Amino acid sequence: MADQGPKRILVLGGGFAGVYAAIELERLLQGRDDYQITLINRENYFVYQPMLPEIISGSIGLFDTVSPLRRLLPKTNVQVRDVESVDLEQKVVVTSPGFKPVAHRIRYDHLILALGTVTDFRGMTGLTQHALPFKNLGDALFLRNHVIHALEEASIEGDSELRQALLTFVIAGGGFSGVEVAAELNDFVRGVAKTYRGIDRSEIKVILLHGGARILPELTEKLGLLAQKVLAQRGVDIRFNAYLQAATTDAAILRDGTHIPTKTLVSTVPSSPNPILDMLALPKERGKIKVSNQLQVEGSDHLWALGDCALVPLPDGKSFAPPTAQHAIQEAKVAAHNLVASLRGGTRKTFDFGGLGKMGSLGHHSAVAEAFGMQFSGLLAWLMWRTVYLMKLPGWDRRFRTAVSWGTDLFLPPDIVQLKIAHSAGVTQEHYEPGDDIFRQGDLGDRLYIIIKGRCDVLRVIDGREQTLANLGPGEYFGEMALLNQTTRGATIRCTEGLDVLSLRKGDFGALVTHLPALRESFEKVVDRRNLGPGPD
Amino acid sequence: MADQGPKRILVLGGGFAGVYAAIELERLLQGRDDYQITLINRENYFVYQPMLPEIISGSIGLFDTVSPLRRLLPKTNVQVRDVESVDLEQKVVVTSPGFKPVAHRIRYDHLILALGTVTDFRGMTGLTQHALPFKNLGDALFLRNHVIHALEEASIEGDSELRQALLTFVIAGGGFSGVEVAAELNDFVRGVAKTYRGIDRSEIKVILLHGGARILPELTEKLGLLAQKVLAQRGVDIRFNAYLQAATTDAAILRDGTHIPTKTLVSTVPSSPNPILDMLALPKERGKIKVSNQLQVEGSDHLWALGDCALVPLPDGKSFAPPTAQHAIQEAKVAAHNLVASLRGGTRKTFDFGGLGKMGSLGHHSAVAEAFGMQFSGLLAWLMWRTVYLMKLPGWDRRFRTAVSWGTDLFLPPDIVQLKIAHSAGVTQEHYEPGDDIFRQGDLGDRLYIIIKGRCDVLRVIDGREQTLANLGPGEYFGEMALLNQTTRGATIRCTEGLDVLSLRKGDFGALVTHLPALRESFEKVVDRRNLGPGPD
Repeated sequence: MADQGPKRILVLGGGFAGVYAAIELERLLQGRDDYQITLINRENYFVYQPMLPEIISGSIGLFDTVSPLRRLLPKTNVQVRDVESVDLEQKVVVTSPGFKPVAHRIRYDHLILALGTVTDFRGMTGLTQHALPFKNLGDALFLRNHVIHALEEASIEGDSELRQALLTFVIAGGGFSGVEVAAELNDFVRGVAKTYRGIDRSEIKVILLHGGARILPELTEKLGLLAQKVLAQRGVDIRFNAYLQAATTDAAILRDGTHIPTKTLVSTVPSSPNPILDMLALPKERGKIKVSNQLQVEGSDHLWALGDCALVPLPDGKSFAPPTAQHAIQEAKVAAHNLVASLRGGTRKTFDFGGLGKMGSLGHHSAVAEAFGMQFSGLLAWLMWRTVYLMKLPGWDRRFRTAVSWGTDLFLPPDIVQLKIAHSAGVTQEHYEPGDDIFRQGDLGDRLYIIIKGRCDVLRVIDGREQTLANLGPGEYFGEMALLNQTTRGATIRCTEGLDVLSLRKGDFGALVTHLPALRESFEKVVDRRNLGPGPD
Repeated sequence: MADQGPKRILVLGGGFAGVYAAIELERLLQGRDDYQITLINRENYFVYQPMLPEIISGSIGLFDTVSPLRRLLPKTNVQVRDVESVDLEQKVVVTSPGFKPVAHRIRYDHLILALGTVTDFRGMTGLTQHALPFKNLGDALFLRNHVIHALEEASIEGDSELRQALLTFVIAGGGFSGVEVAAELNDFVRGVAKTYRGIDRSEIKVILLHGGARILPELTEKLGLLAQKVLAQRGVDIRFNAYLQAATTDAAILRDGTHIPTKTLVSTVPSSPNPILDMLALPKERGKIKVSNQLQVEGSDHLWALGDCALVPLPDGKSFAPPTAQHAIQEAKVAAHNLVASLRGGTRKTFDFGGLGKMGSLGHHSAVAEAFGMQFSGLLAWLMWRTVYLMKLPGWDRRFRTAVSWGTDLFLPPDIVQLKIAHSAGVTQEHYEPGDDIFRQGDLGDRLYIIIKGRCDVLRVIDGREQTLANLGPGEYFGEMALLNQTTRGATIRCTEGLDVLSLRKGDFGALVTHLPALRESFEKVVDRRNLGPGPD
């Protein structure tokens, strides 16, 4: 049946590359029922990435930056699943289970790989646990809610150290994404601060960390410097040659040893190709799939790769296409054309697109842009930015909604509703640096900690003097006493080395201990032992 | 200092009762600095409850139904925290910790209790685990996303039984809230179904369970019957005298034994007073605080209670104020007035409000209403409903945004973006009925289960015949083999009794087992034992 049925074209990924490839395939194969297009993506929407930072300030509606894939691709079978594995031999893609733990197996004749990149904090201590990524709608909403939460807490916090950390917002990465996030976040927190009775605007710090000597290296020096000036005037503190190296729950730590106390650290770098690629035995360079200038995977006649997961040669023969939306869209058109040509015959196209222009918003009716060999800045660039994005937004309903939101936003105050959503829950990991206190004697006990790596001291004030009761290491845990018997911590836990811990919420821990006899016994032993002497907690 | 400083008025709760009490206090005490008003609420916004169901269909923006408390109450200290405990003797309220595990203690001179009700599934098997509540913004967004997820899965599901369960939506409760949720949900799923290539509208079932013989008992019989007719015409299947008794991950179970296979069960009943009240030694009846017709707690001169957590006598001396927004607002005005009178002298007021009217939306430009002794239905009632709510919305920016959303919604298609948010994660509880399979041989293994209550069989197909390998009970676990060694389940788990389990995600389980030696040893022992014979999984 497989060989007589329609040709099955499978697209993996719903970013600019994947979606525009499917749109183009739908157009080229219109009216033909001997083809079947399927697209797999983990979200049911396409994110219009360049506008995502505007979610932070709420200047556009939550759903305005995204388009439902089914509306964009009426003739494509859209499957909202994670890709678990790809079997290139058998020509089968396996997706993760949905409501029932059964995997789907999807057969294909042609495969388009457009899996993009993922945020990758490997090798950077504590970033996975404490830095906020900024890639999809969930990230943007989470950041927005987190920022509002920090403002809420700062407004009632008496401890001046914690208060300053709550009012310090650090963004790592001075490229387009980092600059736009910093600009929007800065506008937002300074704009809403007056609504908070306990917060003075002068207490707010927004810090942009950039590895280079000037931000926006994608643009000319003149525009980059201009952007710096605009951001600095609005109160963004730009730190140059500053590399984020580690993070704890209380601070961002730079390569030169600087600690910046903060409760909000956003990292727009680094990203690496989708881990699915590691499983594929395909020619790769720098982790990306090598393709011809016709977007075909080297050595294959039915595999195509494009977008940020592919290494696409530019006409100069030396460089490769940069990871921008414009390039992805052009690659998608070429790939779709060539795929259809390989099926039906016809001339193939080669990819030779140099890009039209570049632009970045600086928030607050200001932007910088380069296009047609000219440079623009300020209000004019901002109007260009809005107009171009409005025209590029897929779907007229989206355009209309966004235009209305933007119009409304001009004269309404920004929204400060904090939508509480559980982002990470259950068992989480945390990282601490030497000298950090994980909790202090007298604190409320709301979590249990299990040591993965590193060591810490258990300290208690006895007769007015702080005394070390014990030193704990990997596999040991602390914090269980407050959960079992008491509500406040009987001791302080201070790191003597860099410490990684697993942390469990009170409720989860209680449920496990109650129902797992082995765990209960083990905890009871430790509790008994600790109760004999002055226990650690 | 406490006695010489300003009088501290503390309001607990940010629903209609608490917010309107604070608004009225701000007004009455305007320009006086010898008073300090503080309000504590777990969210930083006030929910305009009657419009919450519209979130489901996205016919209003996500934030249009809520108002930031700080904007509504510019002169009040708003604290966004959970109330942990109230010490009536010491006149102190303790709130839960924020970013740091330290509790806040807030002293008061006058306390207004407006804590409302909470969803309470106690005594109803499996509802806590498998029924979706519908009380706040998070619930509404979660339901919306869940419904879209069910549609996404149904569109690619081959198993016809699972497919039908995915396309069946059950709402329990035929009062205003349940009817409005059913109407909006029905409009939404039928409206967007055509966007899903694999779904036929005729497959969709929306079922409203109601305990009585007609819905909307709050209204006259005529209007109730009319509402039933309108809903039935739109395809809502109303089941009368139907009591929801239990739920599993696959079905809603009624008192008469009927199983309705579904993956979406919304329960708008029952609610009970906030559990904080249980800790307070105050005169109560039916779990609510008894107050005078001046809203003062019996036997106290500085405690006030109102809204759904109070039993407020009506002028007839026999009945009590119903739990509606209108009554809460009137109670708030009386309580605020009397509190100020008790501080500054002056005549007190008594509560004698009978309500102005009642109305409920049926979705799709239709509603039913009773007001001024008259009855309205259809488009006229719907326009009344919209106008009244628009005027009642606190804040002009909110009114404007909502009016724009409603206007836009008239000619744009409904949105189907699924915003993935982790609602419940980590350690969750699940309930199964006798005969249910928790997983089947060959399924993907993505969770570990620990038995809390009940028993189940471990079955494996050997030589084409299903054989029972073991029977497990409380404290035992299953599913660990697939997580440790394999990716698919080696056995089927079938309940022989009603079963409650704790369930852990693969990643959480892996982290715990890796780092907790006691747990690892215990699991290894079981794995060894099971590997000797044909193990359960």
